[in-house]
Amino acid sequence: MNFTINATSGSARRGTLTLPHGIVQTPAFMNVATQAAIKGGLSAPDLETVGCQIALANTYHLHLRPGENIVRNAGGLHTFMNWQRPILTDSGGFQIFSLARLRKISESGVEFSSHIDGRRVFMSPEDSVRIQHALGSDIAMAFDECVGLPATRDYVEDSCARTFRWLERCKMELTRLDEHSEHTALFGINQGATFPDLRLRHMEQIASLDLPGYAIGGLAVGESHAEMYATLDALLPAMPTDKPRYLMGVGTPSNILEAVSRGVDLFDCVLPARNGRHGKLYTSQGTLNIKNERYSNDFTPIDPECKCPVCRSHSRAYLRHLFKSGEVLALRLSVMHNLWYFNHLMEEIRAAIESDTLHKLTQRLYYTT
Amino acid sequence: MNFTINATSGSARRGTLTLPHGIVQTPAFMNVATQAAIKGGLSAPDLETVGCQIALANTYHLHLRPGENIVRNAGGLHTFMNWQRPILTDSGGFQIFSLARLRKISESGVEFSSHIDGRRVFMSPEDSVRIQHALGSDIAMAFDECVGLPATRDYVEDSCARTFRWLERCKMELTRLDEHSEHTALFGINQGATFPDLRLRHMEQIASLDLPGYAIGGLAVGESHAEMYATLDALLPAMPTDKPRYLMGVGTPSNILEAVSRGVDLFDCVLPARNGRHGKLYTSQGTLNIKNERYSNDFTPIDPECKCPVCRSHSRAYLRHLFKSGEVLALRLSVMHNLWYFNHLMEEIRAAIESDTLHKLTQRLYYTT
Repeated sequence: MNFTINATSGSARRGTLTLPHGIVQTPAFMNVATQAAIKGGLSAPDLETVGCQIALANTYHLHLRPGENIVRNAGGLHTFMNWQRPILTDSGGFQIFSLARLRKISESGVEFSSHIDGRRVFMSPEDSVRIQHALGSDIAMAFDECVGLPATRDYVEDSCARTFRWLERCKMELTRLDEHSEHTALFGINQGATFPDLRLRHMEQIASLDLPGYAIGGLAVGESHAEMYATLDALLPAMPTDKPRYLMGVGTPSNILEAVSRGVDLFDCVLPARNGRHGKLYTSQGTLNIKNERYSNDFTPIDPECKCPVCRSHSRAYLRHLFKSGEVLALRLSVMHNLWYFNHLMEEIRAAIESDTLHKLTQRLYYTT
Repeated sequence: MNFTINATSGSARRGTLTLPHGIVQTPAFMNVATQAAIKGGLSAPDLETVGCQIALANTYHLHLRPGENIVRNAGGLHTFMNWQRPILTDSGGFQIFSLARLRKISESGVEFSSHIDGRRVFMSPEDSVRIQHALGSDIAMAFDECVGLPATRDYVEDSCARTFRWLERCKMELTRLDEHSEHTALFGINQGATFPDLRLRHMEQIASLDLPGYAIGGLAVGESHAEMYATLDALLPAMPTDKPRYLMGVGTPSNILEAVSRGVDLFDCVLPARNGRHGKLYTSQGTLNIKNERYSNDFTPIDPECKCPVCRSHSRAYLRHLFKSGEVLALRLSVMHNLWYFNHLMEEIRAAIESDTLHKLTQRLYYTT
């Protein structure tokens, strides 16, 4: 893995991230393929069409179904889902703490009940890394505890210390697995809930391991935007400047712009796909709900300024008709448009950093988000 | 509209049907886009990819939702759904007699309750033709009564007589609408339930109107295959040889082969799409249920002999995973494969007629259906 910063605009960085399966121009938005597929019926060629540079898949989901052995036997996740560009896998930590039930956390790992069939599953940091390695990810995320809020300072302090010990174990396990082939890059994840000093101390700790990249976890979990930005303001100066920085689970276009302007390079969020499936579509003039009666006779595209394949071939009236008729195509076209919007937004952000005009983009886009 | 027969093999015909939106090589299978979309999330480009020559849309559904005025305002069905190849619309008759409730049939037309919201709707033969003309179909079907079985001879005789009077009204209305532009071809529909003499008498009547094409309706509604083939044996010699012959709602690959060998040119059926959505996939070795546990570790394509885009890029294991995970992409890939299978079967049938080897194809394919 190689990461080069080509230009800056204030604290914002325009970078190039080279991974085994290709190059990612940053800042970049990762498109979420939780179960080795983009929700809404998008295929891998559709993903390329909407300008996706890197897909994110979920270790928790793929471990439970179909299981990493099937994916490895298929030749890895890239072959399994027919996606030849880079893939990042999360560690399963976040899903264990948000989806699974009856968690029992210990130093060795976490035991939990599968949200699918209730069966008891144990996952250690080493398990998580082994699964991600079997999936063949370009980037593996460290196994962490994502602390639910509110949490006491004592609990968060203990949890951060354990997450750091887990990180050391993740690094050791990946080193062992990658001994003969260095294909998977491990990113550490910063935690610390809403305690700035714990966040900073944890960041210093994980930075000391000299990992290929660093992520900020435990944000976008219900705190206010102001709290999120304050945490970023405190954290980003403490993050290694020569490594990619990934803000997990974020976010809206304005969240992304705010974070980019503070120096974040990578993002992921289910928002554009989820909103798309509910008919909420992003446009240069703000969002619209395509199911609204007012669009029944509107033969203009979703966004007249948009050059995505959906806007080039379909009208608002057709899309509304598909939603009202319960046609699956409604989901696919809406998700395609929204993902294109987010990927295109990142293109605009990259160009704005190169021309040092990020503030203008911020002004223009703010009211649409 | 122009129809030319280029070759024959026994009673089977290899034809070319020229329509305002393009040429259809016959025998052809029409892909069903009931509500101006193929179920399972296929887009118009997907339809081209699977080799669809002509799509079928439903007048009943589109009249109720979104309404033909919206489609006309969009520039017609071709523009509305972004499909530039030919479209046939059925008349609404079959759906009124299978989907709608509280039907009241009279000489002037049928009053019924919408299956969507229960509202009372009246449709006359003239209404049906006006709707199909507004949709901009290449081929409009005559408005007919599809008699439910079992039915008394007296009822069927009266019904056939009325359906013939309705056909005359359809023809008159389309002539009026097409006065300045002859774009839509009207096909008459033969009825007569399971009474061979009524079928024949009705066929002679409708043939006397010298319409551009003729369809056989009221089959594939629950009768045995032997009964269907016996009806075809009796009817086909009485159908005009220089007009396309369309067997409505049929069917399985073996049904299609049997009908082609008796001289049928056009088919439509929801079977490949519906089966695909349930994971039943067609292969050169018969059908398979992709949800079966045995495919969880099977990294071969659905059909190793198939050259469709799904078989070229995806394994049975991936498809099974998508079904088990509830991913919409499962539906789309399965429907794409099945439609490709049917469209490709028609290609093989056309080639076999040209080389006068239809009997060999019948032998090879019979056990797969």
